Amino acid sequence: MSEWSHFDSNGRPIMVDIGDKPPTPRSAIAEGWVDLPEAVYDAIKRGAVSKGDPAAVAEIGGIMGAKRTSELIPLCHGIRLDNVSVRCEIPDGERSLRIVCEASAREPTGVEMEALTGVSVAALVFYDMCKGIDKRMVIRDVRLLKKTGGKSDTWGG
Amino acid sequence: MSEWSHFDSNGRPIMVDIGDKPPTPRSAIAEGWVDLPEAVYDAIKRGAVSKGDPAAVAEIGGIMGAKRTSELIPLCHGIRLDNVSVRCEIPDGERSLRIVCEASAREPTGVEMEALTGVSVAALVFYDMCKGIDKRMVIRDVRLLKKTGGKSDTWGG
Amino acid sequence: MSEWSHFDSNGRPIMVDIGDKPPTPRSAIAEGWVDLPEAVYDAIKRGAVSKGDPAAVAEIGGIMGAKRTSELIPLCHGIRLDNVSVRCEIPDGERSLRIVCEASAREPTGVEMEALTGVSVAALVFYDMCKGIDKRMVIRDVRLLKKTGGKSDTWGG
Amino acid sequence: MSEWSHFDSNGRPIMVDIGDKPPTPRSAIAEGWVDLPEAVYDAIKRGAVSKGDPAAVAEIGGIMGAKRTSELIPLCHGIRLDNVSVRCEIPDGERSLRIVCEASAREPTGVEMEALTGVSVAALVFYDMCKGIDKRMVIRDVRLLKKTGGKSDTWGG
Amino acid sequence: MSEWSHFDSNGRPIMVDIGDKPPTPRSAIAEGWVDLPEAVYDAIKRGAVSKGDPAAVAEIGGIMGAKRTSELIPLCHGIRLDNVSVRCEIPDGERSLRIVCEASAREPTGVEMEALTGVSVAALVFYDMCKGIDKRMVIRDVRLLKKTGGKSDTWGG
Amino acid sequence: MSEWSHFDSNGRPIMVDIGDKPPTPRSAIAEGWVDLPEAVYDAIKRGAVSKGDPAAVAEIGGIMGAKRTSELIPLCHGIRLDNVSVRCEIPDGERSLRIVCEASAREPTGVEMEALTGVSVAALVFYDMCKGIDKRMVIRDVRLLKKTGGKSDTWGG
Repeated sequence: MSEWSHFDSNGRPIMVDIGDKPPTPRSAIAEGWVDLPEAVYDAIKRGAVSKGDPAAVAEIGGIMGAKRTSELIPLCHGIRLDNVSVRCEIPDGERSLRIVCEASAREPTGVEMEALTGVSVAALVFYDMCKGIDKRMVIRDVRLLKKTGGKSDTWGG
Repeated sequence: MSEWSHFDSNGRPIMVDIGDKPPTPRSAIAEGWVDLPEAVYDAIKRGAVSKGDPAAVAEIGGIMGAKRTSELIPLCHGIRLDNVSVRCEIPDGERSLRIVCEASAREPTGVEMEALTGVSVAALVFYDMCKGIDKRMVIRDVRLLKKTGGKSDTWGG
Repeated sequence: MSEWSHFDSNGRPIMVDIGDKPPTPRSAIAEGWVDLPEAVYDAIKRGAVSKGDPAAVAEIGGIMGAKRTSELIPLCHGIRLDNVSVRCEIPDGERSLRIVCEASAREPTGVEMEALTGVSVAALVFYDMCKGIDKRMVIRDVRLLKKTGGKSDTWGG
Repeated sequence: MSEWSHFDSNGRPIMVDIGDKPPTPRSAIAEGWVDLPEAVYDAIKRGAVSKGDPAAVAEIGGIMGAKRTSELIPLCHGIRLDNVSVRCEIPDGERSLRIVCEASAREPTGVEMEALTGVSVAALVFYDMCKGIDKRMVIRDVRLLKKTGGKSDTWGG
Repeated sequence: MSEWSHFDSNGRPIMVDIGDKPPTPRSAIAEGWVDLPEAVYDAIKRGAVSKGDPAAVAEIGGIMGAKRTSELIPLCHGIRLDNVSVRCEIPDGERSLRIVCEASAREPTGVEMEALTGVSVAALVFYDMCKGIDKRMVIRDVRLLKKTGGKSDTWGG
Repeated sequence: MSEWSHFDSNGRPIMVDIGDKPPTPRSAIAEGWVDLPEAVYDAIKRGAVSKGDPAAVAEIGGIMGAKRTSELIPLCHGIRLDNVSVRCEIPDGERSLRIVCEASAREPTGVEMEALTGVSVAALVFYDMCKGIDKRMVIRDVRLLKKTGGKSDTWGG
């Protein structure tokens, strides 16, 4: 059962012991999408010229969510993040919001979960901001794009 | 700008005032999927006969996440949930994990965000449990299936 | 020592037992000010025409802070808030930001602490947003303006 | 718009990336005052000879609040504090409580927000402890007195 | 497997659905003990005449802990507590601290876990306050003394 | 009063300033027991052959609880844990659950409180999982078994 980093040989849940690893620079980039029904899309496009911006609230919520990753994910280490950025935008020609979260730290463990959590919480916040217009939004394709640092060093990208 | 429940007429972020609404029974069901690379799928299928079960950890994490919805979503009300259930399983013939979260409460506001948060956090926990095997999992199609109660009463389903 | 609601006759800390009080409508309004050094004031005035708005971030932070009042204040009850609003603006002719927080609930206990916490956290968030420009901001005159409901019913206003 | 450390060039909220800064010793001292109506002042003076001490509860609450700074302030980094102290006392000849919070850490970012948060939360806790006597307390003049360490090194003091 | 309220028939973790239960008055009393090595006992007895009181800090910590029960216990409902009291004292003739926590609420579910959590967190806080003197303290006999309300109504006592 | 690490010379609560201590490897092991009434014992023994396992839920809860130690214990430092493990099992011949928590970190302060908190929260979670069967469980003998690192280096064991 050694393929499972989070179970011991008896199948009990475990954290990964990082006590023999030095802190090294780590980064991760994750993305996700929120498909927008027409009414939501139109409202956002109209709103873009005024001050109320659901994407800005989602970005703040995503950053705050990424900082709480170790509270949400039972076996995640609490670490000091050097940076988290969350960007939400509708790419030209799309009817979907693209969310990208980058996280970085100098720690003995990676920041993939922080990046993925930042994307997921931003998506939920965005959903909440717009659900009064149309609840048929769909959060999709939340995934890790790239990570650097650690044993496997660079992955993806 | 009245189409936005979470912005006032000047575009400033607001909660929805529920002070004139009585508590009524509310429920919501949300689902989401996690696509599993072959190595993860195989490991889970093998693991299903032993005690270590990433789906059980994800279910617990999802329930705990749903209870924290109002901390994660800036403009969400904190409410007393009557029940949250999270179920994670690989349907026959699928190479993906299906996550379903049902939430219910007797409150003046709906529980859609709780159901969606339960799904999203369960998906993240599941990702964390399996990421040592293959990081190419994709969380997809997180959406509301149905809600009951409140002004719009039944939606979806 | 009966004048102290939060100490018993031996001086030990206690919550106020609200078990014999029915839930009734409660509201509270609190305000506070942040004095702005010239550089901060000028930057905000210039920024008001672009999208980045420290006041909007402070408003969101204040709402989220008000929701966490019972975690911050040791002897406060956790309640369900019907609404929290936080407004930050520089009144005409002032060199200070005015923060107003209104909270309301239908509970057996008042929401004064929630309103005051919303103001205080919003002020701290605003400070954080602007401290790169000048750290000499001063948070002042945080106080309760008015409350309604409960034994003493209306106070202030 | 480079004067804003917490907005990018498009006005979107950002954390400050501290990834290229080494940890160095940081400290900050903040203060604040709570003006006491006569009934509160008298009750505290009388209480000072017994065990119930609202200032002691406020000190504990302030320390706990300072430890939660990164949860309350959206764009603040979570760090490991080496020390937080909060002292609440009525200086001779004053009718106001003075709160002083000192925070220190060896981190790549300053601890000003932790010191200010410690003061603000202690003030709120003190208010809560005494509000049964008279609600007309006013929290005023919360400000940074001094900081050391970091790019600007010593400030104030 | 119906004897398990927190597992379904397939052994998956579940909350108890309280959606068909009305709120009714609930209370619970729990106790626990901390055995004190001689050096700790003596220091407390000496300290009792001065202001620093580890029992008062433990009482505050226990109340705050009880309020967070639903965050700590995965399958516990978040509820509004009407009251929590924690009392820590060394009974005459004992060399142990006795901790008693009473919790009450008007909710569709009991408050046993809140009372037990209040005792356990108070015991941990007390341990922390005194561990610089002697670490050989033992927390023992944490148990429910009595509960009232709910289906089984009065239990114990 | 110098014997108290958490009070100053005036008896006010203080954290221990760790600013002049380098991070060094620290570990701690704590244990505790939960006495099981016959009905609980029998149900667990029967359940051991199916998937629902209260001990596994308790282990996850204990790990999550240990990560929150600095939120629960007012004067504890927040640190980065390298590892936390919690093991719950009924030793052969016993009618009690034994809980062991090991914590480790490279920090300027010890991890005794984290280990003790892990045990206590796991015990509470286990109690919650089984309380539908019989509430007469007793949590006992929660204590530190061993610590390494720091000024006093190895203790116990």
